[in-house]
Amino acid sequence: MGPHPAVAAIRLAVRRVLHDVLTEHRDTTTPGTAPGEHPLVLVACSGGADSMALASALAFEARKLHVRAGGITVDHGLQQGSGQRATEVTDRMTALGLDPVEAIAVTVGRDGGPEAAARDARYAALDDAAERHGAAAVLLGHTRDDQAETVLLGLARGSGIRSLSGMAAVSGTARRYRRPFLELDRQTVRKACIAQELAVWDDPHNSDPAYTRSRLRHEGLPALEKALGKGVVEALARTAQLSRDDADALDSWAADAEAAVRDEAGRLECAKLHGLPPAVRRRILRRAVIAEGAPAGSLFARHIEELDRLITGWRGQGAINLPGRVEARRQGGRLVIRQG
Amino acid sequence: MGPHPAVAAIRLAVRRVLHDVLTEHRDTTTPGTAPGEHPLVLVACSGGADSMALASALAFEARKLHVRAGGITVDHGLQQGSGQRATEVTDRMTALGLDPVEAIAVTVGRDGGPEAAARDARYAALDDAAERHGAAAVLLGHTRDDQAETVLLGLARGSGIRSLSGMAAVSGTARRYRRPFLELDRQTVRKACIAQELAVWDDPHNSDPAYTRSRLRHEGLPALEKALGKGVVEALARTAQLSRDDADALDSWAADAEAAVRDEAGRLECAKLHGLPPAVRRRILRRAVIAEGAPAGSLFARHIEELDRLITGWRGQGAINLPGRVEARRQGGRLVIRQG
Repeated sequence: MGPHPAVAAIRLAVRRVLHDVLTEHRDTTTPGTAPGEHPLVLVACSGGADSMALASALAFEARKLHVRAGGITVDHGLQQGSGQRATEVTDRMTALGLDPVEAIAVTVGRDGGPEAAARDARYAALDDAAERHGAAAVLLGHTRDDQAETVLLGLARGSGIRSLSGMAAVSGTARRYRRPFLELDRQTVRKACIAQELAVWDDPHNSDPAYTRSRLRHEGLPALEKALGKGVVEALARTAQLSRDDADALDSWAADAEAAVRDEAGRLECAKLHGLPPAVRRRILRRAVIAEGAPAGSLFARHIEELDRLITGWRGQGAINLPGRVEARRQGGRLVIRQG
Repeated sequence: MGPHPAVAAIRLAVRRVLHDVLTEHRDTTTPGTAPGEHPLVLVACSGGADSMALASALAFEARKLHVRAGGITVDHGLQQGSGQRATEVTDRMTALGLDPVEAIAVTVGRDGGPEAAARDARYAALDDAAERHGAAAVLLGHTRDDQAETVLLGLARGSGIRSLSGMAAVSGTARRYRRPFLELDRQTVRKACIAQELAVWDDPHNSDPAYTRSRLRHEGLPALEKALGKGVVEALARTAQLSRDDADALDSWAADAEAAVRDEAGRLECAKLHGLPPAVRRRILRRAVIAEGAPAGSLFARHIEELDRLITGWRGQGAINLPGRVEARRQGGRLVIRQG
C-alpha cells in the first residue's frame, strides 16, 4: 500500500524541486560545497503544519536522492516561551532525520509594521544560515492559500500588477528560496500532517485578528469565496502567475526603451516619452525616480501619475516633490529628476 | 450659496465628459447630426439612484453647454410591473427637462447566465437607440464601487490582467459609452440624489443574494474592507486602470511581434516563439487560436498553457484539442493550428 494521497502529493512537490536544485547544482556547484559533495537543502520550519509537512517530505525525499537535508527554525522572540518552542521544533526536525538543524534567535524591529519587520528579520537569518551552511536551497512552506492571501494584500495596495504577482516559486540570491507547495492547497498539506501523525504547533498569530493576514484568512477570503464561489483561491493563485509574467515582460520593455528616450546627455526627452504606451512610460519614470534616490516602497501610483502629467498634460506646471527629497521638473522639453 | 458638495461633484464629473464629447464632436461630427447642430447626449437611466443622479447632472449641465440631452430607460421585462416602472422613469426624465426620452422593452435571453443576458439585451437596445437618435454619446451611471465589484468578478475568473481592467471610462462603437462617475464613490452619488430630493427606485435585484454581484456588494466587499481597510474600493479601481494600460501595451507588443514569428507561409515558428517573453508568447498563441475560430469566451488560461508546452516543454506530445473544434499540433518546428 502506498502513502496517503496527501503525503504522496507533498512528496511529489518536494521531489520536483529537489530535481531542479540538483540539475542546477550540477551546472554551477554551490559555493561552499566541495566538488562531488552532495548539495545541502535546508527547510525553514516554524513548527506549524505547512512547514512540518515540508520538513517531513524533504527528509523522506532527500534519502532517495543525492541531497543532504537540514532545517532551520527562527525564534522571533515575540511570544512568551518562544525559545522553548524553537528547541522543540529542532528536536522534531532531528527526529525526522534532518541534519544539521539549528534554531536562530532574531530581534524583530519595527520598520514597516509588525508583519513586515518579522519577515525581514526572518529572511536575514535564513540568508545568513544558508551562507554559513553552504546550502544550495532553502525550502519555504507557503501554500496556494498563502499565495491567494498575498495577492489580495497586493490588491489592497492598488499599486499595479507587480503587487498582484504574489510570491515567486523561486526567489532570492542565487535562486536560493524555493516554494514547493505554492500550487498545493493548505488542506492537502494539513492532511499530510495528520496522515503522518506529525505533531504541529498552531501559531496564535495566525488567528489573531490584530494581523491583516489573519483577518484576510479567517474573514475576508471566506466571504469572498461565499460571494464568488469555491474557485477563488485557485483564481487568485493563477492571477499571481499571469501578473508576474506580464510585469516581467513590461519591465524588460521599459528597460529596453529607456535608452531610446534619453538624449546624448542622458536626460529624458518628453516628446519621445509621449510616444510610448502609458504602461511603459510610467515604468520608465518610476525607474528614473528610484535611480535618483527615491525609496521604491514610498513611491505610489499617484506620484507617477503626477510626474506623467508633466509629459501628457503639460501646461507649464512647476516642480514636483517626490519621496526621498527627489524633485522633478520639465525644462526645455526634458525631464529633470534630481535629489535635493 | 452654491449647490450641495455632492451635487457639485456629480455635475463637475458630467461637465468634464461633455467637454470631451463636444471637442471630439467638433473634430468628427457625429453621423446623423446636421453640421452646426448641437450634439445629442443620452443618459441610460434605470431609475436607480446612480443613473437618476446622472440624468439630473446631464440635464443641468446641458443647459449651459451646446448640448442636447435625452434619456433612455430599458425595460428588461423581468419583474412584475416593469413596464409601469419604465413609464415612471421616462416621466421623471421628462420632468428633469430631458428630451427626447424613451422607454425600450427588450427580451432577455439566457446566454451566459441571467446577468450577462440582461446586459447584452440592454446594450443592444442602447446601441440601437443611439443610432436612431444620432446620439454623440450615451452616459452610463457606473460608480467607483461598481468598478471595484467588476474587478473582483474578473479576479474570480483568474484569467489574467485584461479581466482585472474593469470598465473603461470610454467604450463602444465610435467611443459612444461614457462613464462620468467611474471615479466617484457611490455614497457621493446617493447623497446628490437626497440633496436634490430626487425620487429613486431600488432595484430588488441589487440586494438579491441569487446574484453574484449583489453577494459581492453586500457581503464580499464589506468583509474585504473589514480585513484590509477602507481604501479597498479605491485600490481596486486604481488596479483596473493600471491593468488596462498594461494589458493594452502587452496586446500591442503581441500584435507587433506576431509578424516576426511567422515564416513565409504564415506558420508560427516554435524557435522564434520560444525566444519571446512568456507574457507576449501566450498572447500571440491566444490570438492565433481565436483567429482559427475558437470562441474567446471559452478559451481559458489552462488551454493556452497546454498549447505553450508544445513550445517550452516539447517532448513529442500529440495534437491538442481546443474550444470551437480547433486543433493545435507541432510539426517540423512549426505550430499548426486549425479548425477541424
